[in-house]
Amino acid sequence: MALLVQKFGGTSVATPERMREIAEQVRFRRLQGDDVVLVVSAMGSETDELLRLASAVADRQPGREMDMLITAGERKATALVCMALHDRGVPAESLTGSQAGFITDTTHQNARILEIRPERVRAAIAEGRVPVVAGSQGVSSDRDVTFLGRGGSDTTAVALAHVLGADACELYTDVSGVFTADPRVVPRARRIERLSYDEMLEMTATGCPKPAMRSVEVARARRVRLHVRSAFTWEPGTWIGEEDPTMEQAIVSAVTHDTSEAKITVPNVPDRPGIAGTLFRRLAELDVNVDMIVQNVSADGVTDISFTVPRGQLGDSTSVAQSLAAEIGAGAVTSDATIARVSLIGAGMKTNPGVAATMFETLGAAGINIEMISTSAIRISCVVREADVVGAVSVLHDAFGLDRAGATVRP
Amino acid sequence: MALLVQKFGGTSVATPERMREIAEQVRFRRLQGDDVVLVVSAMGSETDELLRLASAVADRQPGREMDMLITAGERKATALVCMALHDRGVPAESLTGSQAGFITDTTHQNARILEIRPERVRAAIAEGRVPVVAGSQGVSSDRDVTFLGRGGSDTTAVALAHVLGADACELYTDVSGVFTADPRVVPRARRIERLSYDEMLEMTATGCPKPAMRSVEVARARRVRLHVRSAFTWEPGTWIGEEDPTMEQAIVSAVTHDTSEAKITVPNVPDRPGIAGTLFRRLAELDVNVDMIVQNVSADGVTDISFTVPRGQLGDSTSVAQSLAAEIGAGAVTSDATIARVSLIGAGMKTNPGVAATMFETLGAAGINIEMISTSAIRISCVVREADVVGAVSVLHDAFGLDRAGATVRP
Repeated sequence: MALLVQKFGGTSVATPERMREIAEQVRFRRLQGDDVVLVVSAMGSETDELLRLASAVADRQPGREMDMLITAGERKATALVCMALHDRGVPAESLTGSQAGFITDTTHQNARILEIRPERVRAAIAEGRVPVVAGSQGVSSDRDVTFLGRGGSDTTAVALAHVLGADACELYTDVSGVFTADPRVVPRARRIERLSYDEMLEMTATGCPKPAMRSVEVARARRVRLHVRSAFTWEPGTWIGEEDPTMEQAIVSAVTHDTSEAKITVPNVPDRPGIAGTLFRRLAELDVNVDMIVQNVSADGVTDISFTVPRGQLGDSTSVAQSLAAEIGAGAVTSDATIARVSLIGAGMKTNPGVAATMFETLGAAGINIEMISTSAIRISCVVREADVVGAVSVLHDAFGLDRAGATVRP
Repeated sequence: MALLVQKFGGTSVATPERMREIAEQVRFRRLQGDDVVLVVSAMGSETDELLRLASAVADRQPGREMDMLITAGERKATALVCMALHDRGVPAESLTGSQAGFITDTTHQNARILEIRPERVRAAIAEGRVPVVAGSQGVSSDRDVTFLGRGGSDTTAVALAHVLGADACELYTDVSGVFTADPRVVPRARRIERLSYDEMLEMTATGCPKPAMRSVEVARARRVRLHVRSAFTWEPGTWIGEEDPTMEQAIVSAVTHDTSEAKITVPNVPDRPGIAGTLFRRLAELDVNVDMIVQNVSADGVTDISFTVPRGQLGDSTSVAQSLAAEIGAGAVTSDATIARVSLIGAGMKTNPGVAATMFETLGAAGINIEMISTSAIRISCVVREADVVGAVSVLHDAFGLDRAGATVRP
């Protein structure tokens, strides 16, 4: 008899039919003897529609009011899912973030969970009812309604699974798990059975859209076992947990890609301490989320610094870089929005040299030029032309045999 | 400097444009030195859409979950109206029913207010912010979200005006006030400037759709001055307050009509004590809302009992009447769903005999047959054929000169 927290995303609760499917699934789970706690997102594209409405009403939208508005979507979904459960004879109880005990800070639109007091969730379970908790919301220490941000329902589910001591947290989505590459780019991409927290984190950081990175961070910190799976096929998906030291690690688990960034280069930077610090401090003050940073080896007392930023922040970031370049006598700043980042992820990389070499050789043989490189213990990322992204992901997926189950253990 | 509670109904907040109009109006009111508290309903037909969604999800809808679902509509509207106010430079703060301090009983879908603790509303006013309160909702003594029922936003506004000691409660709607008759039936119907609580109550009880009867009851009990007016034209509407003994009362203030009821007659009822009691007790046990009851004078030891019920309850009510008729040896029960009720309302009727006679003569001269009559101190109602309703309202409106301002003082 297990306790499961199941999170259903927007597409999984988009229609009355889908809600009835969820109810049927819960009924079966309970017949198998398991206790279930549900966390639900707003229906389909409701959050987007609420944002559109807010833009139509006002040019400026205070965070407090946006949170009051947006969280209405999840509340609706909880009530409707409860009705579907009751209709199947399953006692259920909807709970807002506040009722479920989610206390957050006062950072509207992106609140952080401070504490969870899940007394009502526990009481419902104890009395045989299925708690249906509104995702991505809480109540602040100022007693205001708060929203945890887009993708926050994953975080709600993982945090709740932790405080309840659940056996697993199932994240239901519209795909059947985490794949070796985006199946739209590589049709032969394969669903991964098992990933470590670190691998999943690197994948979400480099372009894998689900689950939300923050929820994986919480899961890793609290050791909550995740199961990413489909609410359309109900087949087993991808398990995410601790690395199993008794098992041989896959050298390469997946190829990810990201085309949302742009590159800025400051050439001929005088090679003296403090300059990079000044640059990235100024960018941080503008809330620019700098991702890759590459600085070449110094030659003749000058060096080039390249970094990537979200495309939407390219203009501001370029201005910052230009004014600093003028102050320090560096060369003319260049920026480029037509790049893509391709990454290899694999926990086994740590102990397998030669993965980087194979990656660079493979891209070279395909005539794809590498513009920037950065690595971590379990990831290698290359910046390439945006036009080359599909080719790059495909040849790497083939080169590391990712379409063959288990083949990645020894490429 | 006055304190005003303003309630905006669904059509008044149906679009972003209308919300911006409300914000502009509030800005002017504050420039005039008044403090304003807003109460808003859900946008346009949102409540109906939520009900449709609930029916699509489940055959049975538990009240607790319906309340969680429906109240999301008002929350959305409060947040959006606040954004519109901020955008006009007016500080504002949305408050759910719970945040505004509405404590209710646990009767879901039709909760009663037990107590209001409006600390956050008062704090917002004191700090110069406009509180925007979600209508028709509260939190129960079980800490569950509750809904006060359709039309409950009027009650929220009136109750809040009472506890805040507001100078008036303005009920904004899509019409410009309360009329001497339904303008769709009588094109010459005129807006009434002033009505007593009792007249307004009799009007809502006999077919005038707005404001909601419960809110008028609360206003009368708590002596809250109401102003029913238009959020489209912003012109002064109808004031509802205590009778002013220094002013001459209008003999007839309005003609109302209602075509939502049906008539049941039990003929030849043995005239002995307790039979009527038994009949209406059984109907009450079925939650049938019996309206008019007429019992003729007994002749030959038997009497006829006629009464009206909502058309949707005609079948059940007829069955109850038939089984009782069989038990007591009464005649064959007849029922009729094609009736209408036409009523004259006027506080001055009390001291002006002859109004009833004029009413019956007028209907008779128009060839309209009267099937049932009932009266109160300030109302006379006649049941007529449904096909005669437009004619009946029109001739009565003319006979009492309701199209001429002030003319009703002496018909």
